[in-house]
Amino acid sequence: MFDCGRIAIIGGGSWATAIAKIVVAHTHHIGWYMRRDDRIEDFKRLGHNPAYLTSVRFNMEEITFASDINKIVQAYDTLIFVTPSAYIKNHLKKLKTRIKDKFVVTAIKGIVPDDNLICSEYFHQVYDIPYENLACLGGPSHAEEVALERLSYLTVACSDRDKARAFSDVLACDYIKTKISSDVVGIEYASVLKNVYAIAAGICNGLKYGDNFMAVLMANAVQEMSRFLTSVYPLDRNITDSVYLGDLLVTGYSNFSRNRTFGTMIGKGYSIKSAQIEMEMIAEGYFGTKCMKEINRHSHVNMPILDAVYNILYERISPQIEIKLLTDSFR
Amino acid sequence: MFDCGRIAIIGGGSWATAIAKIVVAHTHHIGWYMRRDDRIEDFKRLGHNPAYLTSVRFNMEEITFASDINKIVQAYDTLIFVTPSAYIKNHLKKLKTRIKDKFVVTAIKGIVPDDNLICSEYFHQVYDIPYENLACLGGPSHAEEVALERLSYLTVACSDRDKARAFSDVLACDYIKTKISSDVVGIEYASVLKNVYAIAAGICNGLKYGDNFMAVLMANAVQEMSRFLTSVYPLDRNITDSVYLGDLLVTGYSNFSRNRTFGTMIGKGYSIKSAQIEMEMIAEGYFGTKCMKEINRHSHVNMPILDAVYNILYERISPQIEIKLLTDSFR
Repeated sequence: MFDCGRIAIIGGGSWATAIAKIVVAHTHHIGWYMRRDDRIEDFKRLGHNPAYLTSVRFNMEEITFASDINKIVQAYDTLIFVTPSAYIKNHLKKLKTRIKDKFVVTAIKGIVPDDNLICSEYFHQVYDIPYENLACLGGPSHAEEVALERLSYLTVACSDRDKARAFSDVLACDYIKTKISSDVVGIEYASVLKNVYAIAAGICNGLKYGDNFMAVLMANAVQEMSRFLTSVYPLDRNITDSVYLGDLLVTGYSNFSRNRTFGTMIGKGYSIKSAQIEMEMIAEGYFGTKCMKEINRHSHVNMPILDAVYNILYERISPQIEIKLLTDSFR
Repeated sequence: MFDCGRIAIIGGGSWATAIAKIVVAHTHHIGWYMRRDDRIEDFKRLGHNPAYLTSVRFNMEEITFASDINKIVQAYDTLIFVTPSAYIKNHLKKLKTRIKDKFVVTAIKGIVPDDNLICSEYFHQVYDIPYENLACLGGPSHAEEVALERLSYLTVACSDRDKARAFSDVLACDYIKTKISSDVVGIEYASVLKNVYAIAAGICNGLKYGDNFMAVLMANAVQEMSRFLTSVYPLDRNITDSVYLGDLLVTGYSNFSRNRTFGTMIGKGYSIKSAQIEMEMIAEGYFGTKCMKEINRHSHVNMPILDAVYNILYERISPQIEIKLLTDSFR
């Protein structure tokens, strides 16, 4: 049986904090890379992440922090990458150590910019990590609810089922149920697309479309997702599994979703810049939309929802007009 | 091309009123059967349904009301049945005219009690209506949103595609988009099951399960629905179409849903009786649960959500215990 060995978290946001909470309860030790020294100092002083999920208290004796990614990478066997995709290359650029032999888990839910690659492909192509050492973590999982220990279901995907099983065993607890999958590519793409669709849901919400239409939008979104996945990575997957459909629903229907909130502001007529300033953060799906549009230029899959969100966000076409056209394409 | 002829509505609730609004805008005349004379008198005096969707105003010159079902049935060609399933037999018992040659559309979303038949089967078996004259109307459609003319998508199913097309043309307008299907049986069962799953969603909501779990519940619900439909009526259907998945989502996720509200009260610890008194009505899914459980005694499909709701509503098993067991069966 594969042993995940010593486990480290790369990233300091809310999902990173939620994963750290789950893992450290099982292993009683984690390494944790955060970029900012002041954040680490505050974390140690307060006993919790100073910026995210502040209600989750950690035992400081169980965590080794470092703001030098090399220190963490050298000392740990399993690396869980959970940063916004926009920053992943900046972090990795600082690497002076090889990570070829590590077990790398991506929980990033975004595309590597410029390269337009999902994270597992990026790690494989740029860092020579063999696919059997690459896993991804998916599932409907607002970090805020994991912090509250509300029952959540996570899926660990890896081409090596033993490794998927071993890592899923590290996560399973009273309030986390796990399953395993071999569909790393499909789950990574699905987790990017659901953010695009959550923006679409928000835009329609902002434009005062109702619940009846929202249900039709979500049904069409899961069909669009299925068409894309079947085209880029054919596999006998069930698109209604919770890691695909469930993750879409939790993001598209929840007011906690940053992507949906961003979309709602766009639908209400905010400019993209003012929406981003108001939210004090960048919705992951904003970048995801551009990357997916680029990727689909080669795949030519019929993706009217992606196209509409792209046109609204990047071509400055009026949400009213673009969504009206979209509704005509639905069935 | 089939002609729907003169169209009448059987039933006086909110969905009946919404359908009447859609149809009469197209035909400029409808017949309308309502059981109670006083309701009809109030309707005529006020210019709107006195009890449901009171904001929807009708032109009284375009409606012929009757509290005698025979008067309506004799004079009209297309009969849209849209009463609670619990009362359909009482209405039909009063029939003295044959309805064998009518075009019958069911918009009932329930099972005929005692017989445990979906409405189209009941009309076929008891009233000799051939399948090609039986249609059903489905889709994610809160009546309240149709009243507000919010964009909604309806599906008309009939084994005779010409007839489905003709009736769907009567419904299509600015805010109603239609599609047709041949899956009468599947859509009728789906519309019953979604009420059961909305009760489940409400129960989990009442028990304080969060958004992450709700998404897993909905994903498992659509899988359970798919298993049942595939077993009782195998057909090349796409369960993520809006008439199946969308209808489930609008009912399971919306606070407008009476079935979800009923479930929430049960989850919070109300007795069934006090929940029904508080709501001043009976949630359709309460009966649907019992009927589906009976039907599945012969089909033996693995339906853990249906079983859990049944056990809570009819076997008086504690929602806490039953839902905890259900969560263990999910993936």
